[in-house]
Amino acid sequence: MPSNRAVSYQGAGKVEVRNIDYPEFELKDGPGVNPANVGRKVPHGAIVKAVATNICGSDQHMVRGRTTAPIGLVLGHEITGEVVEVGPDAEFTKVGDLVSVPFNISCGRCRNCKEGKTGICENVNPDRPGSAYGYVDMGGWVGGQAQYVLVPYADWNLLKFPDRDRAMEKILDLAMLADIFPTGFHGCVTAGVKPGSTVYIAGAGPVGLAAAVSAFLLGAAAVIVGDLNKDRLEQARSFGCETVDVSRGEPKDQIEQILGVPEVDCGVDAVGFEARGHGADAGRERPATVLNSLMDVTRAGGALGIPGLYVTGDPGASDEAAKQGSLSIGLGLGWAKSLSFTTGQCPVMRYNYYLMQAILHDRVQIAKAVNAVPIPLERAPQGYEDFDQGAASKFVLDPNGVLGTTG
Amino acid sequence: MPSNRAVSYQGAGKVEVRNIDYPEFELKDGPGVNPANVGRKVPHGAIVKAVATNICGSDQHMVRGRTTAPIGLVLGHEITGEVVEVGPDAEFTKVGDLVSVPFNISCGRCRNCKEGKTGICENVNPDRPGSAYGYVDMGGWVGGQAQYVLVPYADWNLLKFPDRDRAMEKILDLAMLADIFPTGFHGCVTAGVKPGSTVYIAGAGPVGLAAAVSAFLLGAAAVIVGDLNKDRLEQARSFGCETVDVSRGEPKDQIEQILGVPEVDCGVDAVGFEARGHGADAGRERPATVLNSLMDVTRAGGALGIPGLYVTGDPGASDEAAKQGSLSIGLGLGWAKSLSFTTGQCPVMRYNYYLMQAILHDRVQIAKAVNAVPIPLERAPQGYEDFDQGAASKFVLDPNGVLGTTG
Amino acid sequence: MPSNRAVSYQGAGKVEVRNIDYPEFELKDGPGVNPANVGRKVPHGAIVKAVATNICGSDQHMVRGRTTAPIGLVLGHEITGEVVEVGPDAEFTKVGDLVSVPFNISCGRCRNCKEGKTGICENVNPDRPGSAYGYVDMGGWVGGQAQYVLVPYADWNLLKFPDRDRAMEKILDLAMLADIFPTGFHGCVTAGVKPGSTVYIAGAGPVGLAAAVSAFLLGAAAVIVGDLNKDRLEQARSFGCETVDVSRGEPKDQIEQILGVPEVDCGVDAVGFEARGHGADAGRERPATVLNSLMDVTRAGGALGIPGLYVTGDPGASDEAAKQGSLSIGLGLGWAKSLSFTTGQCPVMRYNYYLMQAILHDRVQIAKAVNAVPIPLERAPQGYEDFDQGAASKFVLDPNGVLGTTG
Amino acid sequence: MPSNRAVSYQGAGKVEVRNIDYPEFELKDGPGVNPANVGRKVPHGAIVKAVATNICGSDQHMVRGRTTAPIGLVLGHEITGEVVEVGPDAEFTKVGDLVSVPFNISCGRCRNCKEGKTGICENVNPDRPGSAYGYVDMGGWVGGQAQYVLVPYADWNLLKFPDRDRAMEKILDLAMLADIFPTGFHGCVTAGVKPGSTVYIAGAGPVGLAAAVSAFLLGAAAVIVGDLNKDRLEQARSFGCETVDVSRGEPKDQIEQILGVPEVDCGVDAVGFEARGHGADAGRERPATVLNSLMDVTRAGGALGIPGLYVTGDPGASDEAAKQGSLSIGLGLGWAKSLSFTTGQCPVMRYNYYLMQAILHDRVQIAKAVNAVPIPLERAPQGYEDFDQGAASKFVLDPNGVLGTTG
Repeated sequence: MPSNRAVSYQGAGKVEVRNIDYPEFELKDGPGVNPANVGRKVPHGAIVKAVATNICGSDQHMVRGRTTAPIGLVLGHEITGEVVEVGPDAEFTKVGDLVSVPFNISCGRCRNCKEGKTGICENVNPDRPGSAYGYVDMGGWVGGQAQYVLVPYADWNLLKFPDRDRAMEKILDLAMLADIFPTGFHGCVTAGVKPGSTVYIAGAGPVGLAAAVSAFLLGAAAVIVGDLNKDRLEQARSFGCETVDVSRGEPKDQIEQILGVPEVDCGVDAVGFEARGHGADAGRERPATVLNSLMDVTRAGGALGIPGLYVTGDPGASDEAAKQGSLSIGLGLGWAKSLSFTTGQCPVMRYNYYLMQAILHDRVQIAKAVNAVPIPLERAPQGYEDFDQGAASKFVLDPNGVLGTTG
Repeated sequence: MPSNRAVSYQGAGKVEVRNIDYPEFELKDGPGVNPANVGRKVPHGAIVKAVATNICGSDQHMVRGRTTAPIGLVLGHEITGEVVEVGPDAEFTKVGDLVSVPFNISCGRCRNCKEGKTGICENVNPDRPGSAYGYVDMGGWVGGQAQYVLVPYADWNLLKFPDRDRAMEKILDLAMLADIFPTGFHGCVTAGVKPGSTVYIAGAGPVGLAAAVSAFLLGAAAVIVGDLNKDRLEQARSFGCETVDVSRGEPKDQIEQILGVPEVDCGVDAVGFEARGHGADAGRERPATVLNSLMDVTRAGGALGIPGLYVTGDPGASDEAAKQGSLSIGLGLGWAKSLSFTTGQCPVMRYNYYLMQAILHDRVQIAKAVNAVPIPLERAPQGYEDFDQGAASKFVLDPNGVLGTTG
Repeated sequence: MPSNRAVSYQGAGKVEVRNIDYPEFELKDGPGVNPANVGRKVPHGAIVKAVATNICGSDQHMVRGRTTAPIGLVLGHEITGEVVEVGPDAEFTKVGDLVSVPFNISCGRCRNCKEGKTGICENVNPDRPGSAYGYVDMGGWVGGQAQYVLVPYADWNLLKFPDRDRAMEKILDLAMLADIFPTGFHGCVTAGVKPGSTVYIAGAGPVGLAAAVSAFLLGAAAVIVGDLNKDRLEQARSFGCETVDVSRGEPKDQIEQILGVPEVDCGVDAVGFEARGHGADAGRERPATVLNSLMDVTRAGGALGIPGLYVTGDPGASDEAAKQGSLSIGLGLGWAKSLSFTTGQCPVMRYNYYLMQAILHDRVQIAKAVNAVPIPLERAPQGYEDFDQGAASKFVLDPNGVLGTTG
Repeated sequence: MPSNRAVSYQGAGKVEVRNIDYPEFELKDGPGVNPANVGRKVPHGAIVKAVATNICGSDQHMVRGRTTAPIGLVLGHEITGEVVEVGPDAEFTKVGDLVSVPFNISCGRCRNCKEGKTGICENVNPDRPGSAYGYVDMGGWVGGQAQYVLVPYADWNLLKFPDRDRAMEKILDLAMLADIFPTGFHGCVTAGVKPGSTVYIAGAGPVGLAAAVSAFLLGAAAVIVGDLNKDRLEQARSFGCETVDVSRGEPKDQIEQILGVPEVDCGVDAVGFEARGHGADAGRERPATVLNSLMDVTRAGGALGIPGLYVTGDPGASDEAAKQGSLSIGLGLGWAKSLSFTTGQCPVMRYNYYLMQAILHDRVQIAKAVNAVPIPLERAPQGYEDFDQGAASKFVLDPNGVLGTTG
């Protein structure tokens, strides 16, 4: 049985690469595994040898200590790899398939899955609808920043790349299908982006940049990205975005300078609950800042796509209400403008086949846009730290050396 | 020139019926008329002799003194009547037409109107998109709780009833097309109500009851209405709704007793910013209560339709944030459940033709469901007072005696 | 092992009830089984003991000898019953569950299924996308007009009734969820039926009547059903439909008498390729009659829902083109009117949960509307004959005596 | 009063540039004017001085003598220009505005217009819903291949370019907003094109090329265009399309060579009723060829967008059925594949604002893609002839010398 090195959470600010058990077709007890899931049989599963497995901004929430993630939790939910073993009930998944694994785990058998709402599957997380690999309070499925990971309901969950060689040529792009590309795309779709739209995307981290790429793919006329981080804004400009530096104040004025009008058709929140203030408040956490400024700049009748994560409890929040997940939102303005809002995990499966096609036919360069940087698994701790410092990069771990990184 | 008696706002808690000018094809100066609208020519208009003109819950916000409505403002935006005069540019509207007037005034010529977003027309209110008759900060179009009212852009705005006699038989039902029936319907549509849905509607006032009728028309399997007011709940039960008495606590438990599960597919907020608390808090204003409880009871993946009015400023609010239109909303929970939210004025024109057809073919009894009660125009002050006291009625003013009321 | 009596096709015009093998978790060779499906393992399956299993109009195409169905084919695809055995891979389906079986067999694992297009599953029929139980050229899955039937991919396919006792009270209604209720509903949805619509449904057989019930459930203002068969038209009138007797001529004039205008908003074809002419042509097969008359009566900008079956080859057709599945369609008229058209099998799973809810909450009486008549399995041959003669009934076979029929 | 030179139909195969009356705010009698429209007042109109006015493939149907177009009919419905005079009821249209004129004339006041279905306006053509400038049987509105043209309902119909100078820089691109760009776009939208789709477009004339540009703008992964004309296929390849030469046979095989599978997600018919056969039949008119081959190559569950024109009567057709507008369509295959179909005129107003934005922000080069070639108005006869001979160009007439052409 091969070794299985994996990224493990070791307390606020600390991750380590450790040896963990090689997966079996059963969810065993371990850090963060929901008791009701312990011992769950997974004959429908596949074991995937990771080719690329990315560090995500939502991992940072845990690593910063903003959640109740337990010590020893194996992280990682952005997995791309090769099937090396299948359970007896996996009928169409074959050993050797090169696949993308949607970050949301879903069963393909409940009412929500049948409706395509795979972000809120009812059968995988005993606590509430919705799950993901390696995430706190999500049922305890072992994370995939590892050499090997178990994927349940493999026939349902896995997206197979049709041609292995062609896929390997674009593997860094395809690695973004597990989460951020569909997530950014979902943000744009739910914000109503279509050909000719003007779009403002709050946040130039990987999800924000993926949303910007998505907005272009959807035909947007103008894509404006806002952030406090100058390197990330520079990255956004590298593929045709306009940018707004929110450290200089509310985005409205800068949008007017760009477009000639102080508003956009569509707004996307790619920041979430750890938002910081704008202008003079730029150094402080202001969890409702992004939502309120999006309502300000989005045209009446428009929509806000909110892929940025908001949580039900945030013990580290700056005020009492935010600790309970409550934000002070200027809904009156939103109402006067007849805005609509869509929240929640992206149901990756709704989009990943089509986005794969766009990648394979050279219609998007998502890896370049988000500045995907492969690093060896063993250097994951450094990757986490750099990312937390605001590096304008998307770190892709290479747990089995397939990407050719060297430690 | 005929007299023109009309309902006039005379300060907090007070309305009077007074003589006002007979309309001309021009918007003249008067209480609440936006300076930029004074003198505006209306050759495309029609003068409508009101047959039925209803008191609306949103009028109450003004009459309670919760807005900056000026003394002398003529109220009323739920108008049904007969065309008695047309301007030179009205091509298809004819004298004698019996018509419903959408409460939102729209031009039919701007980008929003062309997209069917008539609730946020760009050309009728100099302050911001969206307007209505007789409403504060909406441009100053004279209200229609009057014998005669000017309707601009008549060809665009008016819905003609195809057969006058058949229409007069159902005039109380048709009177609800101006506002509350489409508004309730919009709430349900945006909440995703479809055949087989379970629906919770917060509020059993006329809009809530209209939403309940709409939910049934849309095929809902179960329609549950919540309120503090026992008479209004009784009214809801009269046409097949289940009810929740929120003075007894949060709706979740009562919903579980009704449905066997503590959640519904769809949630509708038919209350808005003057919401009161639930359970022990029932006597106090708690502006975010309805939204938060709807997030609590709406199933993951569901939607909230929010026809209830939220305002950008509420000087009479119970706390500082609410005075600015900001509410403390548990968005974290909403996000975890992948909920979506739609706010704003109902674009009446999107629905009124079809709802008229449903009425004329006897598929709905909206007047009975909301307990429409015609009263003489001169008794409007009493109607306002009774409605404010929680009467389970929808008062329909009869300014020209066509409904046969006697003073 | 229990006996397994089943309805078997025995040549044009002839069905018999015979003993067949009790199902195992494998698709064995037999009449009509596609060679590529022989020996297919079905560990994900469930064996269902039929409580109700209906005769469908599409079975008639085979029994009339209009297809290449082989002798010995076991018929039946409208199955409702109790799970008596589950394969090792069925995780959420339990023995004792009372379930509805969608007539379309689907895997829940292919691209089409993931998109909710279960009528064109790619993994169950080696010939082409889409399958059904007991149907010619559909892969060879054994029909369900039998005491016991094997349902593959049980977790995905089966709809469980939440409460057994409550379900048994409405079992004849719930029996329509397997096919005709969703099929009629799909016809209406794709025809754009919504609250206030006027609808013309061609065909008053069970699917047409189910479409009419669906139209009402969707809120239609007026539902008009056309047929040549006076008993079926009488049945349609029994629940509030208007009717058109097409033996008296094209429907346009009769529609005008009913509605005052010679057109409807929405058209539904519940007849399909064995259509007969209108007026003087009423006795003759005219396969394009229904489509052409629907284009004639549907309002410009409207839509046609086409659940009625059209086939790729019809050896018994009245003309050469029709034998190849080609029809002479007046598309020029359709184009001038900007009509749209939706064809194909209904994806039952998209609707059956919600329609079940509508039944369980007493919002529809589908069994009464289609005149569901339970008969013993052994009398299936008589049922087929009566149905072919135009009986205004929907025959529900009772293979295990649960419905209380006596032979 | 200025002169008004215009392109006039002078019998099969012949157009001439002649002097016609300068427009007034009334529809006067003339060739092809519907008697019910004669003398119609147009106070809501604007007189537009043409800057660019294109020759369209649908004009060719008339010029080839395939219609009942009367001698003297002034042609042209693809108009871009400057407002030089406005009627008294035009409120928001101003002299000097640079505008695009949607080819469909619509009133903005009927039920269809209110629903955004401007291609089937009920008030502009006494014969049936839908109208266009300079077109046979469309009510008689004078064509716009002229120096000046009257546009009715100017506030509703005209799309104003926000910045005159910026617009003039892209005037050849913007000239495509009047018809072919939205028409091709509508074909793609109704065919379901979205990011990642594979698309087959039948026809590489200007509408087909515009559809191809639209498919890319909508994010298509692969765009394949088929035609018999090698120059037009070359033009398609110039901006990234794959191509199929249908003179070599049915497109299925060539599609498989390109994509690896013999099918596409979406099919667009940019040919219409004058289709020619494929392969050995390439020289002959086969009016149903395109529709049948699209059903063949479009994946099960897909959709066909049909912007190509089909007519209700075609006296010059090759067979009797086609003369009545009836085509022999293999609907059985379409049904088995659950295909859907959308026909009809593109409602230009639904798209033109957004496509203008895409042009102004440099997101598409539609003029280059369709090879727009400006020519003087006086050379229109030559343009018609070249276009009829299959020139891979879109001819843009320059009636007032603004485009700088010289005769």
